[in-house]
Amino acid sequence: MRLLAAKEATLRHEFGIEWKLTGVASRRIGWVAEAKGLDPIAALGHGFPKAPEGTAPRNVREWLTAARADVLFEASSLNRHDGQPATDHLKAALESGAHAISANKGPIVHAYAELRQLAHAKNRKFLFESTVMDGAPIFSMFPHSLPAVELRGFRGILNSTTNVVLTEMEKGLTLDEAIKRAQEIGVAETDPSNDLDGWDAAVKVAVLVIVLMGVPIKLEDVERVGIRTVTPEQVAAARAAGMRYKLICRAARTSDGGVRASVRPQQLPLSDTLAMREGTTSVLRFDMDVFGLTVVEHKPGVIATAYGLLADFIRAVKDSA
Amino acid sequence: MRLLAAKEATLRHEFGIEWKLTGVASRRIGWVAEAKGLDPIAALGHGFPKAPEGTAPRNVREWLTAARADVLFEASSLNRHDGQPATDHLKAALESGAHAISANKGPIVHAYAELRQLAHAKNRKFLFESTVMDGAPIFSMFPHSLPAVELRGFRGILNSTTNVVLTEMEKGLTLDEAIKRAQEIGVAETDPSNDLDGWDAAVKVAVLVIVLMGVPIKLEDVERVGIRTVTPEQVAAARAAGMRYKLICRAARTSDGGVRASVRPQQLPLSDTLAMREGTTSVLRFDMDVFGLTVVEHKPGVIATAYGLLADFIRAVKDSA
Repeated sequence: MRLLAAKEATLRHEFGIEWKLTGVASRRIGWVAEAKGLDPIAALGHGFPKAPEGTAPRNVREWLTAARADVLFEASSLNRHDGQPATDHLKAALESGAHAISANKGPIVHAYAELRQLAHAKNRKFLFESTVMDGAPIFSMFPHSLPAVELRGFRGILNSTTNVVLTEMEKGLTLDEAIKRAQEIGVAETDPSNDLDGWDAAVKVAVLVIVLMGVPIKLEDVERVGIRTVTPEQVAAARAAGMRYKLICRAARTSDGGVRASVRPQQLPLSDTLAMREGTTSVLRFDMDVFGLTVVEHKPGVIATAYGLLADFIRAVKDSA
Repeated sequence: MRLLAAKEATLRHEFGIEWKLTGVASRRIGWVAEAKGLDPIAALGHGFPKAPEGTAPRNVREWLTAARADVLFEASSLNRHDGQPATDHLKAALESGAHAISANKGPIVHAYAELRQLAHAKNRKFLFESTVMDGAPIFSMFPHSLPAVELRGFRGILNSTTNVVLTEMEKGLTLDEAIKRAQEIGVAETDPSNDLDGWDAAVKVAVLVIVLMGVPIKLEDVERVGIRTVTPEQVAAARAAGMRYKLICRAARTSDGGVRASVRPQQLPLSDTLAMREGTTSVLRFDMDVFGLTVVEHKPGVIATAYGLLADFIRAVKDSA
């Protein structure tokens, strides 16, 4: 919202895009819609006046109708089990004739083909650039910048909590101390299991395989080892041998047309393009028939994810104008 | 040509693109055109039957007309002084109603605005992805994948000859020995001055500044120091201190709306994302308002440049269909 506001002049002058906020919804505030426009500043925390009794939308469909939404941004938290309720929100948006932009990975893992077909049928966009590497160009890059390549596989570091934790362990901290440190700097959540057990990274691997490699892999098909078993002694021994522990995401096509995918702590030599990535920096190396390509996003902040949503917004609105 | 042929099925099925070769021109074979189609294999070296006396095209315009070209690929060698004759070839193509695709950097430095306007007026594409980093997404990435960003500057390694030479000098070779080695492996030309004196890198910097930063810099405005003054002793001392010499390309906006740009040998710590690039690998790190982004092209071969041209071809034909 802040970034949308900050880029308002650019959007208007460079892309001819004007926008207003006509709906906000969250567990805390419920379904708030006002087709005439809501105050974006209020959306940032000051709250909205309550709708008169009995007039507030009661579900996503009523809310989309009341908001007369042209674009939905879906940014609820990940449900890795079934991708809900985000998938239903995105479907409702597309069915109502709005573009659907998701920062949530769940719907891709659980309903990519369906959402894609629905978007196509409705001539709307279903975009999700920010799901894997914030604002760094991944999904928008492939069809446009890398047409007709054969993507054979990829390797990457896609989870910042584990990357921060492993870096702190290299400084001599235990796993628990390193987690506490990551929580203090605002990288790790109160319950960091999703990160430490490799779930977040595995979901990202599944998203990449499904979308970029065209193989409808299931989350449980991604081999997954977290970093809880890595000891400070192992990290220190690796460092002494000129290596570093990283939680590596990996996928490669198999000879039977499938994909073998994994998330696993691995020791890398310092010369490896993945080894020098510190803190929240993420990296993906693509192995293609024409050349190898690495994309690094350096120490992204909150603005990077917001930018991924903004860039999808511009692509959706501009291409459909 | 080999890559076009290899990707023929992909082009037809995935993009609905069919093509034929209707003209080839080079200093050696002259202007060869045949609107019914030429044999691509012959173009790879076996030669064409000679046109009957007096019927062969005598210049680029006659050649484009005889070939009934829809797309021109311009891949002549760089003339850094005035960008000719490549600029005239591209202009002639656009004026004749063909898309103009250039692997030649000269026309961008000397006639970017003019060629862009001409393409726009003729509703044709003027594309040049392969000029700076072969097939890696740079120019196609910015408008589509990174809309509305503010590009503040960039740093990179964009010349493979000097990168190979500096790596060889780290192994103890003198400059002359390292150049010989780079020539043996087919990276350096017989006269490597363009590379060693930083001209190739400086032209690439100018192209990036002109196109991506929107500042019409001149080649002579790029501060340029080659690697001839770097001694084996300096390289060894840097290595001993945990640093590496690299020929670094750099640009940053100045407070007066201009750009300060340079090509210079510099010592980098090993933790720098540019430091570990070996051999022909090229790298560009973009400094933007939303995050930092690095793109690495790993050890590209001839196919990478060909791919840049192919990707431009697909973008030009598909978007204009």
